[in-house]
Amino acid sequence: MANNFFKKINEYKSSGFGSKIDHQPERFINYNGSVNVKKIGLSFFDHFSVFHFLVTINWLTFNSLVIASYLLANIFFGLSYWIIGIDEIGIKHDTAIEELMESIYFSAQTFSTVGYGRANPGSHLANIVAFSEMLVGMMYLALAAGLLFARFSRPVAKIVFSQKTLIAPYNEGKGVMVRLSNAKSNLLLEVEVKLLLVMNVMEKGKELRKFYDLKMEMSMINMLALTWTIVHPIDEASPLFNFDKDGLDKSKAEFMVLVKGYNNTLSQQVHSRTSYKYYDVEWNAKFSPIFEYKNGHTIVPVNKISQFEKVL
Amino acid sequence: MANNFFKKINEYKSSGFGSKIDHQPERFINYNGSVNVKKIGLSFFDHFSVFHFLVTINWLTFNSLVIASYLLANIFFGLSYWIIGIDEIGIKHDTAIEELMESIYFSAQTFSTVGYGRANPGSHLANIVAFSEMLVGMMYLALAAGLLFARFSRPVAKIVFSQKTLIAPYNEGKGVMVRLSNAKSNLLLEVEVKLLLVMNVMEKGKELRKFYDLKMEMSMINMLALTWTIVHPIDEASPLFNFDKDGLDKSKAEFMVLVKGYNNTLSQQVHSRTSYKYYDVEWNAKFSPIFEYKNGHTIVPVNKISQFEKVL
Amino acid sequence: MANNFFKKINEYKSSGFGSKIDHQPERFINYNGSVNVKKIGLSFFDHFSVFHFLVTINWLTFNSLVIASYLLANIFFGLSYWIIGIDEIGIKHDTAIEELMESIYFSAQTFSTVGYGRANPGSHLANIVAFSEMLVGMMYLALAAGLLFARFSRPVAKIVFSQKTLIAPYNEGKGVMVRLSNAKSNLLLEVEVKLLLVMNVMEKGKELRKFYDLKMEMSMINMLALTWTIVHPIDEASPLFNFDKDGLDKSKAEFMVLVKGYNNTLSQQVHSRTSYKYYDVEWNAKFSPIFEYKNGHTIVPVNKISQFEKVL
Amino acid sequence: MANNFFKKINEYKSSGFGSKIDHQPERFINYNGSVNVKKIGLSFFDHFSVFHFLVTINWLTFNSLVIASYLLANIFFGLSYWIIGIDEIGIKHDTAIEELMESIYFSAQTFSTVGYGRANPGSHLANIVAFSEMLVGMMYLALAAGLLFARFSRPVAKIVFSQKTLIAPYNEGKGVMVRLSNAKSNLLLEVEVKLLLVMNVMEKGKELRKFYDLKMEMSMINMLALTWTIVHPIDEASPLFNFDKDGLDKSKAEFMVLVKGYNNTLSQQVHSRTSYKYYDVEWNAKFSPIFEYKNGHTIVPVNKISQFEKVL
Repeated sequence: MANNFFKKINEYKSSGFGSKIDHQPERFINYNGSVNVKKIGLSFFDHFSVFHFLVTINWLTFNSLVIASYLLANIFFGLSYWIIGIDEIGIKHDTAIEELMESIYFSAQTFSTVGYGRANPGSHLANIVAFSEMLVGMMYLALAAGLLFARFSRPVAKIVFSQKTLIAPYNEGKGVMVRLSNAKSNLLLEVEVKLLLVMNVMEKGKELRKFYDLKMEMSMINMLALTWTIVHPIDEASPLFNFDKDGLDKSKAEFMVLVKGYNNTLSQQVHSRTSYKYYDVEWNAKFSPIFEYKNGHTIVPVNKISQFEKVL
Repeated sequence: MANNFFKKINEYKSSGFGSKIDHQPERFINYNGSVNVKKIGLSFFDHFSVFHFLVTINWLTFNSLVIASYLLANIFFGLSYWIIGIDEIGIKHDTAIEELMESIYFSAQTFSTVGYGRANPGSHLANIVAFSEMLVGMMYLALAAGLLFARFSRPVAKIVFSQKTLIAPYNEGKGVMVRLSNAKSNLLLEVEVKLLLVMNVMEKGKELRKFYDLKMEMSMINMLALTWTIVHPIDEASPLFNFDKDGLDKSKAEFMVLVKGYNNTLSQQVHSRTSYKYYDVEWNAKFSPIFEYKNGHTIVPVNKISQFEKVL
Repeated sequence: MANNFFKKINEYKSSGFGSKIDHQPERFINYNGSVNVKKIGLSFFDHFSVFHFLVTINWLTFNSLVIASYLLANIFFGLSYWIIGIDEIGIKHDTAIEELMESIYFSAQTFSTVGYGRANPGSHLANIVAFSEMLVGMMYLALAAGLLFARFSRPVAKIVFSQKTLIAPYNEGKGVMVRLSNAKSNLLLEVEVKLLLVMNVMEKGKELRKFYDLKMEMSMINMLALTWTIVHPIDEASPLFNFDKDGLDKSKAEFMVLVKGYNNTLSQQVHSRTSYKYYDVEWNAKFSPIFEYKNGHTIVPVNKISQFEKVL
Repeated sequence: MANNFFKKINEYKSSGFGSKIDHQPERFINYNGSVNVKKIGLSFFDHFSVFHFLVTINWLTFNSLVIASYLLANIFFGLSYWIIGIDEIGIKHDTAIEELMESIYFSAQTFSTVGYGRANPGSHLANIVAFSEMLVGMMYLALAAGLLFARFSRPVAKIVFSQKTLIAPYNEGKGVMVRLSNAKSNLLLEVEVKLLLVMNVMEKGKELRKFYDLKMEMSMINMLALTWTIVHPIDEASPLFNFDKDGLDKSKAEFMVLVKGYNNTLSQQVHSRTSYKYYDVEWNAKFSPIFEYKNGHTIVPVNKISQFEKVL
């Protein structure tokens, strides 16, 4: 065991969550699962993935970008037609502004491939611009189809974690407990969990940041239909053995929870993360039972997942 | 073994299929594989996934939604044009109703990007509405393409299970048997199976609901080309050792079968489930041979998969 | 080992490749990897998957279906317009046939959303049919996009197998050898292989069909860049120990090769299969070296993969 | 261990990275991860995958192909209309060239389904060509959508490797070290690494090329958030035990690094490779610490990943 832990410590040192305690970020993983890391040094596009960005931004931002790009494209092509001059422009052409507006309307009719035809390109130049805009419009549509599909088909599990980690009597000793559930109504299969601990410990008179892969009582379940309370039993092999609240607080401990499951409906792996700092730990408490039963169904009130009650 | 089972019991307690026997739903998993669980407590969209819904509803419902949304969009935009007034509307405009109808037709011509052009927007306002509708129409098409692809490309295996679990002589003792097959003509590879048992047992004078992960004689096959009879041998390590029909009935046992395979053609994992209650168990019966051979092919009559014959 | 083999035998009995030797198909797996199995007994659509079909048919058939469905849809809608009567039909309408042709052209203009507008619906009935056809056309396009993507993005590995299985001196004894390669220029990673043997053996005076999972000298390689000769060493644990050509022929042996790999470019698992009957076995032969080296590249002449030379 | 290494050697012999040292390519894997292998002997399309090609070419080439195919299609159909004669061609038809240009413009209006309608087919022949072009245009769009999605959704990890392999004191002995990171801002989960070594060794008086799967101190980490220095400890079981710089140079050693991880956002496996020749090895050096900390974030300057400092 000790050897295994030692290895894990090295592993995490290797992964760059280094062992020096100065200037460390306060926490590695935020409660929402994001990581406190920033990459620099290469060009913008080496660090940045356009597709990743367009797939992960929220719907409001995405829709705004769709609308903005549609507007920009049509303003660009509209201006081009206006400068070139469409031969048989639509009805109103009293002012240059109105002609520009008509050009933009015409651009949209070309871009979207509507093509009413009242306005249509008569000169070679205008025809060539329209010829190009048609291709751009087709590619815009093709791209939108791909992006919408990618956004929609992203893993839809929404793992909900208890707000606190509990440390409470468990079997003959104590245990670290986190409760989680899938808020979505779909079923997650083969759900696995890891509980990592990082804390400052004194070693040979030096304070070092150390990583531990905490042994779980159960690290996999066949399906996550209801809730799951994951447990690390604090036995003699545990790095938390003989720790009390004061000791844990001084160690500035952070518990990281990594969850992995399989969404059957969409044939997709689903991952989720969260983290608890020492001040998110509740001592001597256990999670309250929350299930209700109605019409042969088990009801899971996901909002009550953090409920606990004190134990002596 | 015992220790392993103990762990599994805890696992399932943790997963929320709790150990108390009061107010439990009659069965956890229905014969069709759905689970008797409902999530509440968060907002509707935390529990509900639009994509999940649109991908899993049947084709009749899906097509109705496509048609309904197309109608609604065109009624909305048609009304807008009608209120604004398209300058050069089509032929008939004797009545307001006919003008409204024409506006809806025109809306569809814009939405679908057909754009015949007889009717077309003349005023700035009408042009701006059309400008917007074009984008909506493009996105509608993009979305439809994504959804149709997602619906079509969902795993297509259709695992068929025998209607009964059989308990029959097996080797020197008895065995629990379920027969399954893939109704589809494609081949499933690396098919794995789990057989879980939940039943009420007396422990220290209290009746508890307990979960067991039953040991399979064979839990994986390289390909599921024909049928597969999965077997749990009831040996000394089995929680069913020394149980007879009466004992099983009193325990209100439920056998849950979880199947996982790989669809080679579509590069997809396929999962399926079913469950048998104690009253779905047939004692002293074995599955009848059902294969036929014709023209060098093995014929699998999938409808006969449940056929069994009594053994003494 | 023996125990393991025993288990495997049961496994395959369970999978329905039964142990009785009467009326068995001559071979289970064809050289091209397809399986000699047919499913019957349920309704057509329980056995048949439309998507599976449209994705796996060859391009000629697929394109013919695309064209046929396009023609049929436009003939259907063209007939509808013709019966209803489009108010302002195109130029030529001397004969009913020409009007029908014009109606079909108009249908295509609507279906494809081209909508030139010379012909366009004037009556309410014609407008309503066009309104419907626009939606059908959009869905047709959406479906085509999904299907084309699914067809194109199917795993592209093309595993090429040697035409013969060789049995030749290997280490101190003999070995069964098959050579394979990926004809495509992409790289397969983490390639795994299984070699299964089915043959008739005498047991307790009865001839039984038995299955064996042959132990491989190496069952996984990190990447399949060139060719790979898989080897089953015929040692004492092998079911082929002490077999000669006559013995193998009498056993009507069939060697089944299952290959699995990972296509890095497309993030897809790739599977392939083949099978060799006893008459596809070449005794006392080893595969000829086939690599050439040019300009720092290793050249793999995939067409020479079956080349072998006799050994004494 | 020795036995395991022996097996691995055979594995690689089997995979065709043969043991003869004559005429071998100078290196198997290039620094950018591509492999020095070429497949010949079958037909072009047996070796070549159109989809693979269209998905892996860079954006400039891809866009050029899109534009070229769009131009070619419209020149082809434009020529067809010009030869057939569109009845009511657009405005200008002074010269045959201008008519041809108009025909090409008209083709694009049909291909893209814009269909302004000023020019439109009047004769049966022209109508039938247009009827066909509409289908081609729809399929072009469908294909473009699929390809764009496939290109965009390819795994986006960009693993950056140190330019040199370091050999430096490690624990009580020495170790081979490579540092890597993910340049992209997304998180890779469950990252696994393999370090393979190929070198010429003297065996029974003959120089043979041998392959070794080097034992890693740590071969998997839960997440690759920062950098990861992978280490092969040169202990007694290592094939590099007792090697110094001269020995390694004479062996013409090549270290191959294979990395595999999981991109959570896109539910995709990500693979990467690189290789170091003996002249890419830096003796007695260790990687410099490169992290910075700002505003609670750990900053990873990916461009400094190769930085090392000499140790005695």
